[in-house]
Amino acid sequence: MGTTLRDVADAAGVHPGTASRAMNAETAHLVNPTTARRVRDAASRLGYVPNPLARSLKTNRTLSLGAVVPDIANPLFPPILRGIEDVATAAGYHILIANTDNEAAREQEQVAQLRARQVDGLIIASARLADPVVSGLVTDGIPVVLVNRIEPGLPVSSVSGDDADGIRQAVRHLVSLGHRRIAHVAGPASTSTGNIRVRSFRQEVVEAGLAVEDCPVVEAAAYQIDEGARCMASVVAEHPTTTAVLAANDMLAIGCLDALPEQGLSCPKDVSIVGFNDMPFVDRVTPPLTTVHVRLYETGAEAARIMLALLRDGSLPPKAVTLPVSLVVRGSTAPPALTAGQ
Amino acid sequence: MGTTLRDVADAAGVHPGTASRAMNAETAHLVNPTTARRVRDAASRLGYVPNPLARSLKTNRTLSLGAVVPDIANPLFPPILRGIEDVATAAGYHILIANTDNEAAREQEQVAQLRARQVDGLIIASARLADPVVSGLVTDGIPVVLVNRIEPGLPVSSVSGDDADGIRQAVRHLVSLGHRRIAHVAGPASTSTGNIRVRSFRQEVVEAGLAVEDCPVVEAAAYQIDEGARCMASVVAEHPTTTAVLAANDMLAIGCLDALPEQGLSCPKDVSIVGFNDMPFVDRVTPPLTTVHVRLYETGAEAARIMLALLRDGSLPPKAVTLPVSLVVRGSTAPPALTAGQ
Repeated sequence: MGTTLRDVADAAGVHPGTASRAMNAETAHLVNPTTARRVRDAASRLGYVPNPLARSLKTNRTLSLGAVVPDIANPLFPPILRGIEDVATAAGYHILIANTDNEAAREQEQVAQLRARQVDGLIIASARLADPVVSGLVTDGIPVVLVNRIEPGLPVSSVSGDDADGIRQAVRHLVSLGHRRIAHVAGPASTSTGNIRVRSFRQEVVEAGLAVEDCPVVEAAAYQIDEGARCMASVVAEHPTTTAVLAANDMLAIGCLDALPEQGLSCPKDVSIVGFNDMPFVDRVTPPLTTVHVRLYETGAEAARIMLALLRDGSLPPKAVTLPVSLVVRGSTAPPALTAGQ
Repeated sequence: MGTTLRDVADAAGVHPGTASRAMNAETAHLVNPTTARRVRDAASRLGYVPNPLARSLKTNRTLSLGAVVPDIANPLFPPILRGIEDVATAAGYHILIANTDNEAAREQEQVAQLRARQVDGLIIASARLADPVVSGLVTDGIPVVLVNRIEPGLPVSSVSGDDADGIRQAVRHLVSLGHRRIAHVAGPASTSTGNIRVRSFRQEVVEAGLAVEDCPVVEAAAYQIDEGARCMASVVAEHPTTTAVLAANDMLAIGCLDALPEQGLSCPKDVSIVGFNDMPFVDRVTPPLTTVHVRLYETGAEAARIMLALLRDGSLPPKAVTLPVSLVVRGSTAPPALTAGQ
């Protein structure tokens, strides 16, 4: 790669400073668009690739962002990460991904490593409520955007689906099918999603005129399939007249489906099940899962857009972006069976 | 993070040079294990985090690796990436992930970007056969390891499942069920997996004593669900007596399943279907997919181990690691129906 920025400037007939500004995503808006285009065309023709390390010595930027997820192998996160990457890559940034397995110590260590690498900002999908890692970043003035989860107590931007509305749509769907005994398998209380969804569930139960004692809540310790199965078994044991379960996310919903056969039950004949997120492939499980569709790719893309804006102008006030969600009705919900004793 | 390496050395009672070697994954083996442990304990107690950027100025290493995949949102790749990350992170490396969408131009651009960032090496899951990007890396002496795919023509290490044995197991399973008319939906000829699997299929057909003309091959243009559906429709139209389809991977197999209802067919009653990879969630589709289990996480982890060894000792001869695979029989395969005319 022998082509230098000076070669590009010469070929485009501009001053090297202009060429530099045109080639830098953060300063390109300072250059006349026609000129910027001429520079980019020349760069492309000459096969010029900017050296980000050299640039970062000048700008004190590494043009890298950390993306912190619980587990890249959880199917919820790849679409979010792809959204982050597409937006960030187009602006000249690269993404360093870290997995926390939802363990506080691991999150702390991974974020410390990313900070030691001087990432320009962090997009965090693993935030727990009152997360000291997140508050530490905010205190230290590190640009941070939360994705999927939110942190109401901190001045930090976030992008998430509309949790309250998703739960509302799900409960109303079940009620419209005739269900009156709906259990909620709640997410961990340490997560904003777990908290908001259980609160919304309780509100909707009251609004729908259901008996609160017929609509129990069982809390999962983690958003994992085996926890969903454990909670479903608990619902069946302690609330055997339940006819529908609203799970706080799809992983829990799949665990609920898993637990039914050994209880001698089937979905949707005996129990309807609704998930949350519409993560890839839940339209293909047996039965196809009724769930709340969250625009996962867009959630990541929007988080990256906010991060880029923050890096351009650090003084932007934080904002909580809520993306609309929509219930997708598939095969896992049906009217309740008419059984004796109900 | 005010703790310096000197503080750690003092606390452990060793020379700073010893502390430095003990804290660096690449030189730790030069230090007495008990001493190294004492240094690491002191570092952990003091909350010392090494500064990789400062280190990279000294060592000319960035302690970052590029991982190039077709699409992180394709469920095949997250387990591979998690394997890469776990091994690389434990050795102090971070992973930069790039998506190519299997487009040659995008792959070229992404790899150029990673090289401009001076990654210490590249792990590539997107290699096409005779891939100029890969040969360019080899020519330029950049450490590279291929994962999932191989490149027999180049002196480059690779880690993949045993494609030939996987196809052998799948064909024998179908034959043992009584199938004599088995079609292969082949992967793209531009990929080593597509090539090796179709070649193995043809061999196994002959070895099993099947009539070659009863075992057609239809080639997919990409490892994508819609291509699987297109190929399945073509099999049904042109080879209507086919009773089983062996797809070159799970994405294609899912496409085959998708295409059946509109042909008035069902799986496994009318057509048995076998996939390849056992990617997450194919055990939950309808019907659960019989497929060849590849240890995806281990494939990534082994690729990272080879990369770390290469970075320690650049003169290592390339090796092609083949991991054993095993057929997992689920609901998508059954004996062929006895139909009139056969």
